[in-house]
Amino acid sequence: MRVGFIGLGIMGRPMALNLLRGGHDMQVWSRRPASMAPLLEAGATGHDSAAAVARASEVVISMVADAPDVEQVALGLNGVADGASQGLAFVDMSTIAPAAARGIAARLAQRDIAMLDAPVSGGEAGAIKGSLSIMVGGEDAVFERVKPLFECMGQAITLVGGSGAGQVAKACNQIVTGMAVEAVAEAFNFARKAGVEPARVREALLGGFAYSRILEHHGARMLARDFRPGFKAWMHQKDLRIVMESAHQFGLALPGAATAAQMFNAMVGAGLGEEDSVAMLKLLERLSGTPQS
Amino acid sequence: MRVGFIGLGIMGRPMALNLLRGGHDMQVWSRRPASMAPLLEAGATGHDSAAAVARASEVVISMVADAPDVEQVALGLNGVADGASQGLAFVDMSTIAPAAARGIAARLAQRDIAMLDAPVSGGEAGAIKGSLSIMVGGEDAVFERVKPLFECMGQAITLVGGSGAGQVAKACNQIVTGMAVEAVAEAFNFARKAGVEPARVREALLGGFAYSRILEHHGARMLARDFRPGFKAWMHQKDLRIVMESAHQFGLALPGAATAAQMFNAMVGAGLGEEDSVAMLKLLERLSGTPQS
Repeated sequence: MRVGFIGLGIMGRPMALNLLRGGHDMQVWSRRPASMAPLLEAGATGHDSAAAVARASEVVISMVADAPDVEQVALGLNGVADGASQGLAFVDMSTIAPAAARGIAARLAQRDIAMLDAPVSGGEAGAIKGSLSIMVGGEDAVFERVKPLFECMGQAITLVGGSGAGQVAKACNQIVTGMAVEAVAEAFNFARKAGVEPARVREALLGGFAYSRILEHHGARMLARDFRPGFKAWMHQKDLRIVMESAHQFGLALPGAATAAQMFNAMVGAGLGEEDSVAMLKLLERLSGTPQS
Repeated sequence: MRVGFIGLGIMGRPMALNLLRGGHDMQVWSRRPASMAPLLEAGATGHDSAAAVARASEVVISMVADAPDVEQVALGLNGVADGASQGLAFVDMSTIAPAAARGIAARLAQRDIAMLDAPVSGGEAGAIKGSLSIMVGGEDAVFERVKPLFECMGQAITLVGGSGAGQVAKACNQIVTGMAVEAVAEAFNFARKAGVEPARVREALLGGFAYSRILEHHGARMLARDFRPGFKAWMHQKDLRIVMESAHQFGLALPGAATAAQMFNAMVGAGLGEEDSVAMLKLLERLSGTPQS
């Protein structure tokens, strides 16, 4: 398939490379020409605007930072909509607010461009391995058309519902994983302060209802004091900002997610933003007056 | 083995029955004679005090409500210590504060009685099936002696550390599971308010890092609106009270666990205490002005 890809950063680059390896005819553009280089070397065709990418593509994928970037790519001057030919599908895989995704989809629909929101979970490692979870919102027929592309990038691929539903699922994912990281860090810090080896506690908990992938994988990294990202704390902070803004719009109380959001704010303020989210443990150690290495 | 069992309630009764089925010679006593009946019918020997149970046993197990009850059973008038013969091991499987468990163990040690703290996770269903997780604190030699009894009642059996370590692990377990129940309930409530089917969100999340046993099992019960206990909300409230009191003693901040503890307080205040902890979803629905059935 002729596939455009815009946003060749930490996540986008390995995702685009996996599409290329999957045999797709890749069209790329980036504001920073250096970002395109690895893709061009691998056989992609470079363009000088998002519109030009769209002109050469059947599906255009974006993987950028936040809603204003998606809007710019999709609807800005020389954006995807300006170059779209008949039947183009636009797939945004960034994490943005559900309401923003729905708004962009509605404006694209007025120009006869179908959009899917398809944010991912699994981090850089998942992007490289092609094992991302992909949560999709949009129309069934468009999903079926794009699915072979998703299968080059991910493993658990779910059409959650209509427009925005992918972003809603991603928001839920970040609530659950953010609170789980906080829970495991609090539990380990509690255990150590109580004179018990956190590694033994993790082992005891893995066999029961406390089991989670976060306890298993992120918990192991906390114990190894391996705080390299992975998924940077400032990115989880950003995702929880989206969650809390949406909750504000909905008139919805999320007491646990709100506390987790505050803890991620504090991590960034404490200079831990560039470390993995598991550095939450460090923040808690400092907070209880027993900082470790 | 000649095994005493004191505390034949919702959890204790099926645990004692599983020991009986495992071929052990069971000695029982209860303040309420009616509680003993099912055990006596099944072949246990009844006694008129904890001391009398201890006199006839090599190991005495208690499964009662809180620290004062354990203290009464172990050290009160006509308690276990009063009837203990040489080499008796006392195993408390109740959930109490780590400091209380350590205090009782220290006082029993002065009378040459070894104690293990061995709280469980898995609820009534796990007690009936003999599939409890058992988190143990105490000395290795005592653990090895008692292990065949644990194997009649549970599957994941871990010696976490010295005296009190079982209770520390249980506290960690209740932090992690309490926050996980809250996280899943908040995510589902968010999804519905955002116009997305929570069941689809659960499905999308199960395949990624958000996976937990709570999302799988408790999440399914939330979606089925099956709020029957299981594990009653007031019991989780009580366990988180122990956690927060211990955190107070340690001078330790547990922001996420504190929020979860407040939510369990609110559940009890809202008349949801006798329902399963998954009724957290109902509380959040009321809080956001969209109560369901």
